[in-house]
Amino acid sequence: MPGDESLIIVMQTTADRSDVEHVLERLADIGAEAHVSEGSRRTVIGVIGDRAQVQQLPWEAFPGVERAVPVLKPFKFVSRDFQAEDTVVDVGTTPVGGGHFAAIAGPCAVESRELLFASAEAVMKAGANILRGDAFKPRTSPYSFQGLGEAGLELLAEAREQFGLPFVVEVVDPRDVPLVVGYADMIRVGTRNMANFPLLSELGKQPKPVMLKRGFTATIEEWLNAAEYIYKEGNHNIVLCERGIRTFETSTRNTLDISAVPVIKGLSHLPIIVDPSHSGGKRELVIPLARAAVAVGADGFMVDVHPAPETALVDGPQAILPSEFEVMMDQARALGAAMGLGI
Amino acid sequence: MPGDESLIIVMQTTADRSDVEHVLERLADIGAEAHVSEGSRRTVIGVIGDRAQVQQLPWEAFPGVERAVPVLKPFKFVSRDFQAEDTVVDVGTTPVGGGHFAAIAGPCAVESRELLFASAEAVMKAGANILRGDAFKPRTSPYSFQGLGEAGLELLAEAREQFGLPFVVEVVDPRDVPLVVGYADMIRVGTRNMANFPLLSELGKQPKPVMLKRGFTATIEEWLNAAEYIYKEGNHNIVLCERGIRTFETSTRNTLDISAVPVIKGLSHLPIIVDPSHSGGKRELVIPLARAAVAVGADGFMVDVHPAPETALVDGPQAILPSEFEVMMDQARALGAAMGLGI
Amino acid sequence: MPGDESLIIVMQTTADRSDVEHVLERLADIGAEAHVSEGSRRTVIGVIGDRAQVQQLPWEAFPGVERAVPVLKPFKFVSRDFQAEDTVVDVGTTPVGGGHFAAIAGPCAVESRELLFASAEAVMKAGANILRGDAFKPRTSPYSFQGLGEAGLELLAEAREQFGLPFVVEVVDPRDVPLVVGYADMIRVGTRNMANFPLLSELGKQPKPVMLKRGFTATIEEWLNAAEYIYKEGNHNIVLCERGIRTFETSTRNTLDISAVPVIKGLSHLPIIVDPSHSGGKRELVIPLARAAVAVGADGFMVDVHPAPETALVDGPQAILPSEFEVMMDQARALGAAMGLGI
Amino acid sequence: MPGDESLIIVMQTTADRSDVEHVLERLADIGAEAHVSEGSRRTVIGVIGDRAQVQQLPWEAFPGVERAVPVLKPFKFVSRDFQAEDTVVDVGTTPVGGGHFAAIAGPCAVESRELLFASAEAVMKAGANILRGDAFKPRTSPYSFQGLGEAGLELLAEAREQFGLPFVVEVVDPRDVPLVVGYADMIRVGTRNMANFPLLSELGKQPKPVMLKRGFTATIEEWLNAAEYIYKEGNHNIVLCERGIRTFETSTRNTLDISAVPVIKGLSHLPIIVDPSHSGGKRELVIPLARAAVAVGADGFMVDVHPAPETALVDGPQAILPSEFEVMMDQARALGAAMGLGI
Repeated sequence: MPGDESLIIVMQTTADRSDVEHVLERLADIGAEAHVSEGSRRTVIGVIGDRAQVQQLPWEAFPGVERAVPVLKPFKFVSRDFQAEDTVVDVGTTPVGGGHFAAIAGPCAVESRELLFASAEAVMKAGANILRGDAFKPRTSPYSFQGLGEAGLELLAEAREQFGLPFVVEVVDPRDVPLVVGYADMIRVGTRNMANFPLLSELGKQPKPVMLKRGFTATIEEWLNAAEYIYKEGNHNIVLCERGIRTFETSTRNTLDISAVPVIKGLSHLPIIVDPSHSGGKRELVIPLARAAVAVGADGFMVDVHPAPETALVDGPQAILPSEFEVMMDQARALGAAMGLGI
Repeated sequence: MPGDESLIIVMQTTADRSDVEHVLERLADIGAEAHVSEGSRRTVIGVIGDRAQVQQLPWEAFPGVERAVPVLKPFKFVSRDFQAEDTVVDVGTTPVGGGHFAAIAGPCAVESRELLFASAEAVMKAGANILRGDAFKPRTSPYSFQGLGEAGLELLAEAREQFGLPFVVEVVDPRDVPLVVGYADMIRVGTRNMANFPLLSELGKQPKPVMLKRGFTATIEEWLNAAEYIYKEGNHNIVLCERGIRTFETSTRNTLDISAVPVIKGLSHLPIIVDPSHSGGKRELVIPLARAAVAVGADGFMVDVHPAPETALVDGPQAILPSEFEVMMDQARALGAAMGLGI
Repeated sequence: MPGDESLIIVMQTTADRSDVEHVLERLADIGAEAHVSEGSRRTVIGVIGDRAQVQQLPWEAFPGVERAVPVLKPFKFVSRDFQAEDTVVDVGTTPVGGGHFAAIAGPCAVESRELLFASAEAVMKAGANILRGDAFKPRTSPYSFQGLGEAGLELLAEAREQFGLPFVVEVVDPRDVPLVVGYADMIRVGTRNMANFPLLSELGKQPKPVMLKRGFTATIEEWLNAAEYIYKEGNHNIVLCERGIRTFETSTRNTLDISAVPVIKGLSHLPIIVDPSHSGGKRELVIPLARAAVAVGADGFMVDVHPAPETALVDGPQAILPSEFEVMMDQARALGAAMGLGI
Repeated sequence: MPGDESLIIVMQTTADRSDVEHVLERLADIGAEAHVSEGSRRTVIGVIGDRAQVQQLPWEAFPGVERAVPVLKPFKFVSRDFQAEDTVVDVGTTPVGGGHFAAIAGPCAVESRELLFASAEAVMKAGANILRGDAFKPRTSPYSFQGLGEAGLELLAEAREQFGLPFVVEVVDPRDVPLVVGYADMIRVGTRNMANFPLLSELGKQPKPVMLKRGFTATIEEWLNAAEYIYKEGNHNIVLCERGIRTFETSTRNTLDISAVPVIKGLSHLPIIVDPSHSGGKRELVIPLARAAVAVGADGFMVDVHPAPETALVDGPQAILPSEFEVMMDQARALGAAMGLGI
């Protein structure tokens, strides 16, 4: 509202519970709304309240307070105003963001042990540092293959052991979150669920990093608001993934919004990667779009790799072969080197 | 897949369990996939299988089978191919579809007993036959008002008693479905959840009618596929609601796709209504768009009516006043009469 | 620019050349830019200049000045701010706007004398008051039929004589304007040429009314800016035509933006009609969309009517039969009567 | 039409007029439509006719015929089916396409001699090989600056002499084509005129290369159809320019469709470049998007460079400084080197 002020109070890493309580009490005194987000390293408090009241208090003089940051955007914790330096998200043993490039690859869906392992071995050898593969698939038609469920998660965990790659997997139902958290290294919110707020809140309350794909019809501002839903519940490990938006153009499945990468870099401290497989929807576009992702400054890419795309149960037309993934990694490394980035 | 045939086997209303089992056994023999949907009046079986195998069996000669309908569309049960006559959905005591017009009105969100009752009384007097008002609001920003929850449901039930209007309410989380079912006459799936498949499946398994709003970025085919998710679980009482789609035009919140009404009428037997409030997003557009809805052949409309829009916590700019709703109903009745339709 | 003021100075109908010159001299003195638009009834002067300078002069005290209207919108002459009452455009003997409904019908393209006359006779008998039919067609592919050219114009003029209907025809090249002006009662700018500024300027300088179709990817503001191009050259007889915009939905050729009618009614004094043929692109949608156009408050509609659509050289799938046009006119009249509008 | 066959007959470079006549006579005999396109090096004949008739004749045995290529696409001459190898377009002394990279830079509009020369000198020194700068600007509002006209062309010609850079300039009116041809090295069709068919045809009949910008709401197929309009009139020197499309996203002016580059590379033999200035509409996006253009495989880029963007009369917010252009060229060269491409 017009006379309101938005502020984020960042506690020191050494602040204790009583420091936080002290701040909250003063906020209650002045009638301000407080959103406490307890991260693994520090607590931050989002404040919305009457401008005059909020501004008159010397927040940075309170014990345990590191700084107080006014925020103009509707998304607060995820904005650059709140945190200037890049967030680095640890996915298992693989850091993502702040100069660390994520090369995420694997089959779209986990279909069988044999196919998953063939794909995982191939992408590991070519240089991928995170494995993808889904056990739950949201499908437009109820008559399409919906995934293997927990059996798929077990296969992914087995592949992690064998090939040394952490893995990311999609979750589509808030009731499945505890199950998936028990297996995965990173949990993915798919494009159709970007505005599934109960799911986002649930993921905000668990400890694993979250990859938040952009809704294929969401604006960048809506996308960052969705990330805010996760962040404010206490989970600060979020990786954004641009995957194409719905436009009038029909020669590609969606239109990869490559500009979203530098736009997000300006607005937010979160890492952002690109999915060149689902945006274009065609095998022959994957490698050029992956190159564009590296050059534009993305923190990684995620691609479907399948040893036999013509038999894939889901999204075969856009999966590339292991041999094509090798070419793609070679080109990505060359471009990365030209930009001073290790891939 | 190329060699596959889609068929819907409609059982007679007098068919018993053993008739159904008999059909299912034969389907299993030929390796076909069967989706049994047990409605309140009859059972239908969706079949996907090898064309040659499926076509060679004389399904209509099986005991208890009324007819077997081949379906070419990806959505099957909800298509006109499957059922030629219009579906009529009973919302409490109000029938919707097949010549029965739904005039749904009330506040966007339930904010207080006083405001809800003022709005309910006004819309009832002006001729509304279903009350709207939400207790759970999915909001783009996590910092916006999210609804009163169960307290809101109780107020709606109280208003139903007092004013004799059944009510429709939104649900956003599959875990809330049992709670909402205990109160509401119709359950609404909002635009952001049209592709929330776990939610759709949950709603397919409970007895109350469902209003399925179009995703603001969903094609008509995707929308009917979403309805299919509900229908195939056994709930055949579905009302579609067109509410505008996202386009490049910025002078309206969304672009009302008025053509969707005749397109749906051609493709599906389900009733379809129009929401002129959320599509335009501006008070002065509501009445003209409601008139267009009547004239184009919609089975109803749903509008936000608020006694004091400038104080509304949610979507105030598009709510009309009770006095404006009276004008709107008068105009709708005149247009309806010109079309031979009782409103 | 920030410190600029936009003003429209409306001269009295009795003002003479020296009154206008006097105003222009003063504008030159203060360094303001003046756009003189000489209409058939009066002269208006659009002014853009430094706010302080423009505001200090008592314009309405100048001889021959009726009023001086500040305008905030980028489009000025065509805005409601400039003229509160509805413009009525005379197309031959048919007035359009301000309560006068235009029923425009005929074949998409003039293909032959026989087909044109069969269509013209049928639409005249059913109640159309303006004939359509094109002699120049802008086609996406250079290999498609491009129209009969001047021979087509001659046939249209002949049909006007025989059936007593004024006609509207499209022009696609600024060099063809003098030729078309010699024949037509109204000249149409097609959707692909809405932003063809040399063509718009040329049409602003000739005396026949102009129908300006909305670009299928133009915002309403861009559309009104295009109308401004015509108006400011001195031609004030402009009819806007909504014909659908490009969206992601593929079940219709374009998405009819029915909301554009009340939005335009709020922003501009120009008449606006609806084309239900080219927006939907399907015969079965034409009548319902035409009904919606009447009910939403449009000043007319324009439809393709062809005696044998399956043989039409252009846009056959969306043309309706003469018998369907009769049904459409009957329904339009009934709805019009319910709204107190004579059709 | 269903029974039709599309064929392109490519004459040998040594074929003479009588060889062409001979082919045309035989086509006339079988009632086929022939489109003769006389290029500077050879003549090609586009044929549309009855399949059975067209296929039965041994075209490649005719004197002077090199080959006869069936074409399935609506665009024919510009498709890869017609010509497998990349077209190289000579813009003055600068070749574009087939491994030759165009670095086109300069001010958006020519505003003054001083600003044009300052910009031209800077971009030349940084490595640009073609100069841009417009003398005719199509503006959404009739009250915006419309360009210097012929005086601007003279300044551009003077800058060409002084800095040794050929230049490209926009034309917006078919009547201006002869004037512009007398000055420019390449003529540009702007995004608003992509479907201005009279303009395209006019440009097809003159000898200078044409840069055809994509309509910001045109599909790739429509864009190639527009190129076909130019090509079939005999002008084979066409460079396509992707410049962003209109979508729902508002944080950028348009959405750069980076996928269009590999899609076009698959469909057509024409060079394609990218405009990172007008697509993003923001200075800070230009360099990252230019990097993406190089990496995705574009044949060049075109950017607005202005010594004092804050004072620019047109599109200042997206112009970069000369010093930024130097950085951009350095990065482009590094990425080009990583891809084996000399920039």
